[in-house]
Amino acid sequence: MSYTITSLNNDRVKQVRRLQMDRRYRAREGLFVVEGTRWLADAVQQQVAPMALFYTGDWRKQAGHEEILQQIDPAVQAIVSDEVLAAMSDTETPPGVLAVLPIRPRPLPARPGLLLILDEIRDPGNLGTMLRTAAAAGVDGVLLSPGCVDPHNPKVVRAGMGAHLRLALHQQEWAEIAETSRALQVWLASADGALPYTEVNWRQPSALIVGSEANGAGKEAGALADGTLYIPMYAATESLNAAVAAGIILFEAVRQRL
Amino acid sequence: MSYTITSLNNDRVKQVRRLQMDRRYRAREGLFVVEGTRWLADAVQQQVAPMALFYTGDWRKQAGHEEILQQIDPAVQAIVSDEVLAAMSDTETPPGVLAVLPIRPRPLPARPGLLLILDEIRDPGNLGTMLRTAAAAGVDGVLLSPGCVDPHNPKVVRAGMGAHLRLALHQQEWAEIAETSRALQVWLASADGALPYTEVNWRQPSALIVGSEANGAGKEAGALADGTLYIPMYAATESLNAAVAAGIILFEAVRQRL
Repeated sequence: MSYTITSLNNDRVKQVRRLQMDRRYRAREGLFVVEGTRWLADAVQQQVAPMALFYTGDWRKQAGHEEILQQIDPAVQAIVSDEVLAAMSDTETPPGVLAVLPIRPRPLPARPGLLLILDEIRDPGNLGTMLRTAAAAGVDGVLLSPGCVDPHNPKVVRAGMGAHLRLALHQQEWAEIAETSRALQVWLASADGALPYTEVNWRQPSALIVGSEANGAGKEAGALADGTLYIPMYAATESLNAAVAAGIILFEAVRQRL
Repeated sequence: MSYTITSLNNDRVKQVRRLQMDRRYRAREGLFVVEGTRWLADAVQQQVAPMALFYTGDWRKQAGHEEILQQIDPAVQAIVSDEVLAAMSDTETPPGVLAVLPIRPRPLPARPGLLLILDEIRDPGNLGTMLRTAAAAGVDGVLLSPGCVDPHNPKVVRAGMGAHLRLALHQQEWAEIAETSRALQVWLASADGALPYTEVNWRQPSALIVGSEANGAGKEAGALADGTLYIPMYAATESLNAAVAAGIILFEAVRQRL
């Protein structure tokens, strides 16, 4: 049975606010926050049960929303005032619904065919866009190096648009990343790489390492890579946004594999 | 000879602030504002002379900056206080240098081989990233439909990272866009397109229309297109950021043309 919250001092409201702001608290509790109807519908579709669900009376009345709610345990549902939802939301225009989900990464397959390894990606929007791109390309897993922003940061979650639930997404130390990619040819994307990305044989089991635009990839990434690749550009002065570059290379791999 | 500004009431300071905020004023004056060393160096390299240049004393002292200044008419240069620069800047952390440049689009070639047509792109960061991607892909021109955000909006300029100066970038009415792309095969990117983007023959003179993720492309875009294409994705629920999608398709065209 759902209940109503109108106080900002409610313990559940305070917990959500802390989950939004505190990386260590998210890791310790194994929980993260998603906002918006699309994210909630994705969770239901992926059979990830919310630990808590908050929505406004207005949101509930909109078309299709009652059907979503019927698939979620009433005991975790709470109706909240606009003010309470705004206080819990990381966005300037709160979308009317917000859920707390368990952090429960999908397992990596025993023999991955294509992995994406992200190094030093500190911009949350860029990381979220890369996760979404990786999910669309159907990669077997995404490994995040210790230098990346927390993937459950609210801005990463927002830009990821559900990709977190569909991906085998794992934060690993470099020793683990090396172990996970042991049987793969590992390519590092780099502006001064040796081989055009279109000349790589992506039909072989492969891992692609992408670093940040500002800092490139770190030493450990360079040590792990078997070779470096680049995207040929129109002029030497040109460059690409890191998420766009990741998309171009991943979809070339998809093209070759089809 | 350069001069010093310390007052926020200075007419030149007020003009820059208005250029940052007022689209119509930018169009009427034919001017826009760029921020940061990289943008300024790009302008010098592209032989676009600033109409006005503002920097802090600290910026001037940094390595390499005096050499950039020597290539610019001293009469347009002004040293400003940190406070004045912050007031003129669109960013939270002003980069120490800011210039006013003429809006002077490069001409389109008589027989373009590859054009990008952008429709209803309202997100400034996304538009800037698309312009940068188009420049890296070496397209012959970018046409913006009337529904796009102003490309000289400060957030578009920032994300474009100099692409504005390297591209033949034109805002056109649909009748003009039709005329410009008359001799080209025109493809509209669409989630429910007919042909995978890899099966298009990009060696023929072509135009690609990309709409916004939220709204897709409009009626006029659909009427202009000779066909629709899509990017095959891993699952039906997946989607791509519009700038990433544009990058994937444009670089497939580059790959085929090489």
